Amino acid sequence: MSDAAEWSPLPRSRTYELVLEAIEEKILSGELGVGDRLPPERDFAEMLGVSRSAIREALRVLEAQGVLRRPRVGTGPDSGSMLGGTASIGLSRLLRMHVALANFDLDEIVEARIIMERASVELAAAHADTKALARMRYLLDRMDDPSVPREEFNDLDTEFHVTLAEAAGNRLIADMTTAIRGAIRRPLLKAFELLPDWGSVAGGLRRDHHAIYDAVASGDAAEAARRVEEHIRGFYHKLGRDALRAAPGHGARDHAV
Amino acid sequence: MSDAAEWSPLPRSRTYELVLEAIEEKILSGELGVGDRLPPERDFAEMLGVSRSAIREALRVLEAQGVLRRPRVGTGPDSGSMLGGTASIGLSRLLRMHVALANFDLDEIVEARIIMERASVELAAAHADTKALARMRYLLDRMDDPSVPREEFNDLDTEFHVTLAEAAGNRLIADMTTAIRGAIRRPLLKAFELLPDWGSVAGGLRRDHHAIYDAVASGDAAEAARRVEEHIRGFYHKLGRDALRAAPGHGARDHAV
Repeated sequence: MSDAAEWSPLPRSRTYELVLEAIEEKILSGELGVGDRLPPERDFAEMLGVSRSAIREALRVLEAQGVLRRPRVGTGPDSGSMLGGTASIGLSRLLRMHVALANFDLDEIVEARIIMERASVELAAAHADTKALARMRYLLDRMDDPSVPREEFNDLDTEFHVTLAEAAGNRLIADMTTAIRGAIRRPLLKAFELLPDWGSVAGGLRRDHHAIYDAVASGDAAEAARRVEEHIRGFYHKLGRDALRAAPGHGARDHAV
Repeated sequence: MSDAAEWSPLPRSRTYELVLEAIEEKILSGELGVGDRLPPERDFAEMLGVSRSAIREALRVLEAQGVLRRPRVGTGPDSGSMLGGTASIGLSRLLRMHVALANFDLDEIVEARIIMERASVELAAAHADTKALARMRYLLDRMDDPSVPREEFNDLDTEFHVTLAEAAGNRLIADMTTAIRGAIRRPLLKAFELLPDWGSVAGGLRRDHHAIYDAVASGDAAEAARRVEEHIRGFYHKLGRDALRAAPGHGARDHAV
């Protein structure tokens, strides 16, 4: 062996990761399910023979993933964290950060949006109930108001697409669609603000939304899919790649990945 | 106001959440990007006026999301955590946990898989390069070996689908496809183990995989999409809903969500 043999430090396996793995293993094996509680922090630390801070770090990760509900205040028998279930918030935050970091580029996001939203509206055309349709009409009415500010229009627009996704009756598809739409909310808003002819763009968006709604309400899945694809593609085209690229938070800096 | 007016404790805003929001804000605004470093833990805690444990908890969440790379060992100028970019690991883990918690049911996962994989193979038919095709052929060859154990077959099968997704040339679609396939790896394996006629099922899977490969290699997007949908649907049908439902880790317990 040469004198120049190089040694690199071994990666340290950190305690909180071991705690995470132990909890994940019990979830994947079915031993722990929704509604079950983890032991209170102090007891849990003793059981696993680790520090309370390692437990707390692991719980924070699970909370951010939506796997754990926020613990209730107090120290009684209900004080341990409960396993819960909302994937959408954790999923949205994760995708939002990676979109902002430009780990996905705009073309990839647009294609993924089209795929998810085509699927969503096809399913919505088959499954949307009267309540979901009423909600969509309410959102369309509000967007039809010519005095609505751009930011509010953007939020109503997001909610319209989220309502369509939820009407699809598939929570995984709805969550992914919502996460992608949420991830680009801010760059879209910035691009909206830069548009010189907001009035004509908004008019186009209104017509598209009504056409999508009509296809979904009449149960025409193919037409709904065609309309939503045209809407998304046309919108990004009109917005101009440059406007979106220049929007802070999306590709504002030219980072190699 | 009645004497019986009830008061609930206000939700406590926890310090690590404020730290997370502060970092997220700088990422979303484009002030921080891939390759930038956060300040070393001690300095960061002082700058934000919070405890080091609050900093550490926020960093753990970002690491689990793949937003931060694991920090290097040491305390030099390189010791702060660096913003990085791999969404797929964090995304896979998040979906895997929620699938195990049965926050999504099997039909939802199957439909989402079909949507993502149809899109993946359509894009792969247009984009797959010789290296990706060679990798797929290697995986097909290994699966064709009749002596390959079920667990290894399952891993090769997963890798085949992941290779197809990656050949699509869209990282967001590839990551989501991979995350969904990874999320059901364990319940699929359990179901494999319960199959009495593994030999005939494996034979069907092999034929399907070759047909998908042939369509992708010849650039026939529509045929590839049709084949992959038939493959996924037929497979779940053959496996039997009961086998998958009985598999620990997926719907083993009947939790209301």
